[in-house]
Parts: sequence; structure tokens; C-alpha cells
Amino acid sequence: MAGALSSRGCRRLRGAQLKDLLREKHCVLFDCDGVIWNGEKPVTGAPEVVNMLKKRGKSVFFVTNNCTRPRESYVQKFLRLGFKDVVQSEILSSSYCSAIYLRDVAKLQGKVYVIGCDGVHKELREAGVQFVEDDAAVPGATISDCPLESDVRAVLVGYDDELNFLKLAKACCYLRNPDCLFLATDRDPWHPLRGGRVTPGSGSLAAALETAAERKATVIGKPSRFMFQCIASQFGVDPRRAIMVGDRLETDILFGWSCGVDTVLTLTGVSTLEQAQAYRDSLAPEKAICVPDYVVDSIADFLPAL
Amino acid sequence: MAGALSSRGCRRLRGAQLKDLLREKHCVLFDCDGVIWNGEKPVTGAPEVVNMLKKRGKSVFFVTNNCTRPRESYVQKFLRLGFKDVVQSEILSSSYCSAIYLRDVAKLQGKVYVIGCDGVHKELREAGVQFVEDDAAVPGATISDCPLESDVRAVLVGYDDELNFLKLAKACCYLRNPDCLFLATDRDPWHPLRGGRVTPGSGSLAAALETAAERKATVIGKPSRFMFQCIASQFGVDPRRAIMVGDRLETDILFGWSCGVDTVLTLTGVSTLEQAQAYRDSLAPEKAICVPDYVVDSIADFLPAL
Repeated sequence: MAGALSSRGCRRLRGAQLKDLLREKHCVLFDCDGVIWNGEKPVTGAPEVVNMLKKRGKSVFFVTNNCTRPRESYVQKFLRLGFKDVVQSEILSSSYCSAIYLRDVAKLQGKVYVIGCDGVHKELREAGVQFVEDDAAVPGATISDCPLESDVRAVLVGYDDELNFLKLAKACCYLRNPDCLFLATDRDPWHPLRGGRVTPGSGSLAAALETAAERKATVIGKPSRFMFQCIASQFGVDPRRAIMVGDRLETDILFGWSCGVDTVLTLTGVSTLEQAQAYRDSLAPEKAICVPDYVVDSIADFLPAL
Repeated sequence: MAGALSSRGCRRLRGAQLKDLLREKHCVLFDCDGVIWNGEKPVTGAPEVVNMLKKRGKSVFFVTNNCTRPRESYVQKFLRLGFKDVVQSEILSSSYCSAIYLRDVAKLQGKVYVIGCDGVHKELREAGVQFVEDDAAVPGATISDCPLESDVRAVLVGYDDELNFLKLAKACCYLRNPDCLFLATDRDPWHPLRGGRVTPGSGSLAAALETAAERKATVIGKPSRFMFQCIASQFGVDPRRAIMVGDRLETDILFGWSCGVDTVLTLTGVSTLEQAQAYRDSLAPEKAICVPDYVVDSIADFLPAL
């Protein structure tokens, strides 16, 4: 972090340096999309890196803003893509952490109104948090006359590819109550798809709701520190002995910075080396805190040091 | 304006003052919702005020961010609610002005992808601007595999109560092309409905798209000056001889300020006298520019002066 703020950072990790770093750190936090896999394709060498780290006795955690799947389906994806022995407790998704927040921090009495996918619903159910299971678009139903539930005490917004106007309007009505909590799984603005296409992220839907409700959401996912607090409190991780490996400057690298964890940008995902260097050379503090301490082309670069 | 910036403003308009003001001004701009009507109910006395102003030879224009109806249906609404002799050319809606902008300012070659209601479609059609007429949600269609048109050169976002995720995602894909224009009808964040309910406004949907596309939209509606430019260029209106009457500080009053037009806040809509006074007493310049020069309880207060 000091590196980033004094216009250093972005150091290429190679050979002995990499070995020293891995000796120093006991815990490695990985983002998933763009870091260990891209969609259904593992990053070459990634399964071996994760495997070797665990063999060397490192704690490994996967910290993802992707809220679409429940953790159990992540476990299956890890297996399918050749990552052996990844267990559910090593996976922290923004949907899981949102459920934990509602149960343990907010100690919610009442229901949550959810804009989100199956991943959010399943994690809430597993955590015992009650939620409104909203139907898909009812033809002809409008916000003027649709029923609203009286015991909704929180609104949670995340990626929802079945979003419709009525859902947005209902959430907006619930948020008129100043005592109704307002959470967002994460602020990811968009996600890359194949063929140059993109899809709006949770951050896009959260922005719609924040504008309509004239309130700011409490954000659970990266770069908010809450996901690290979940890991630290459950597993006693010391941030000085951890590194965060990610592909998005404003999400993963800023997350590491906020948690006091050294950061590694890997170039197999969204952000580029040029962006990272431009941030390093910028005078703006809000960019300096997004500068990674280290850069690798791919996490396969870790292999020789293992 | 000088009044607002020097912490005056919010003057109550009464008796002789009101007479003087109306003598001085040749053109009166009215917002619609919350000013001359609320939904399907005219503000008491509003039809008489509009009628008398026109009889006294004043130019009267209706400047509305409501983009859901085409102007022809506004003409019908005016008649239905007792406003006689309002003609289409006196009505400037954000959908009409968006069409004018695309045709005359952007001189668009190609199509517009629209997130919006019938009002937008009809105005585009009338202006001869080609647009993509998007179907409602196609079951099972996703942004990964749906067709995209190759000649889309602009995205226009406005209030759309048939918004769905796929529409948002398509707009987001079109905006990946940096040459694709990005317009929003307006930034109204929400609108009040009966029974304390609210509905998200164009500004909410624009915020979703701005976040996902990481671009800012050019805004056509109030407080942008474009709608006044439409009036001034067509009818030769001098801003110093005009007043703007509206119910929303951040929209109508700021619009008047930006156009160099004196402003009257009427208390039959969204903003309150307390908000206006708090803005007047604030030290922040972004609030000072939203302070009305004058305040009336209702535009019926104009009647004795007419």
C-alpha cells in the first residue's frame, strides 16, 4: 500500500521475489472470474497453483462478487474445472456474505425483499433469513395496485437477469421506510461475455435503486471490507500475512488495500497493465489506492516458485 | 438568480408584487405534474390561470420531463382536465425534445435503441428518426445469444415500465461502441403515486445504464437547457422576459436558473418550502442554484393578479 501511495507499486513478480513473497504470506485470497477461470475455462495452470499452495500449508480463500450461484454450486464448478479439494468454507461469495450480514450483523427481524438470482435465494434460505420470493412479471400488474408485504425490513439488490420494472418499483416502495435496510451484494458495474458482449452487473441495478430511492446501499462485496472480516473472524487471518490476487483494480485491488492486504494484479481478466500504470502515475489519491503492489501475467507465474 | 446566490430568494409572491412580475414577463413556462395537475386531477384554478394568461397575450409553454405520452395525447389531457385551447406546439416533453435533438442536433445516421414508453416511440416516428422497436421479454433469450442490430448509432433511455434485464443489457452492448450516442430523456429519480407509493423515474434507469456502460448520458430534459433552446429558437423567447413555474427544486428551479429565467416554486407538488429555505440558507453553491426566486402555495395565487 505504501508502495502504491508513493507512486511505486505494479512491481513484476518473478523468481526469487515471488518465492520470498510466498514464504512471507500464509494466506492467499483469490478472486475467481478472470483470475482462476474465465467462464467455464480454467486459467492454464490455475488448478495446479491452488493445489500446490494448499499442499504447502497455505490457507486459500476464494472471494467473489459473483452472487449468481450458491456456494454448493461453486464447489461443483471447482471440481468440474480440475480444482481438487476446494471446500465450501473456502468460498466467500457476495450472496453468502450478504446472508451472513443480515443474520449476524443486522440481526434482521422481518423479511428481505430480494432483487437477485438463485444464488442469493439459496444462501438466504441456508442462513435462515426470511425473504420475499417474488414471482416473475405478472402480466398487467403495476406498482400502483400490486400487493406489498408489511414485514419487509430490508432490500437486497444484486445481479438479476430476470429484473423487471415492477421489481425495481417494489424495492423502491419498500425503501421509502427509513428503517428498511438497504444492501447491495456488490458494485461490479458490468461483466464481460464472449464475443465482446457485456452484461450489466449488480452495481448497475444498485445504481438504479439508489437513484430512485435517494439512498445509498451498504455494499457487502469487494471492495467493502466485510468479506475479509468474515474470513478474519472465522479463520483468524492476519492481513499482513495475506495476499489478494485479482483482475479488477477498482474491486480486487481496492479491496486488498482497504483490508491492509498486499495485492497482486493478474492480467488474465478485466484490468490491464496500462491501466494499473496510469493509476500509479496519477496524482489522484482515489486512483493510488487501486494500484496493485505486484503484477503477474497469470497466476501460472506462481508455479516455478512452488 | 442573483437572489438565490446572495441567500435571498424564496420570496412570497402576493398582490402588487405578483402584478408587477406578470407585467414584466411575456412568457410563462409551466411544468405539468405537481404544478397544473396531479395525475388526472387539475390543480384548483389552474385552467383559469392558463386561460387568463393567454387572454392577456402571454406566451405559455408546458415543459415536462414526462416522456410517457406523445404530445398529441397531452393535448387531449389538457382538454379533458378543462384547459381550453392548448395546442401541440405549446407542449415540450422530454420525448419530443429527444427526437428533435437526434434529428436536428446529432443529425443521426442510423437507428436509435430505445428504453422508453410509447411517448418516445411516437415522437421519434413523427420526427422521422429510425429506432429499434424492441419486443417485450422473449422467454429464454439472453444477452449472450440474442441478435443485435448493426446500424444502431444511439441509445436513448427514459421511463419504461416494461423495462427488463435484456433491454438493459442490449443497450449496454450498443454503448460499447464509443461512437454510439448516449441520451437520457431526463434525470427524474422517481415519481409519486397515490397511497404513498412511488415509481422509479427515467433517472433511475439512466443511472443503471451509466453505471454499466461507464459513460455519462447527455440529458435532454430539465434541468438541461436544451428544452429552453427548443422554445427560444422556435418562438424567439427572451429569457429575461420569461418565468419558469415548477414544483421540483433540482429539476424545474435549476432549469430556470440554467436558462437565465426567473423561477417560481409552487407548493402543490414534490418540493416543500422548508427544502427551498434550507437550500437558500445553505453555503453550498450546488444548492444555491436550486433556490427559487419566488414561492406560491399554488398557481391559483396568480388569479387575483390577472
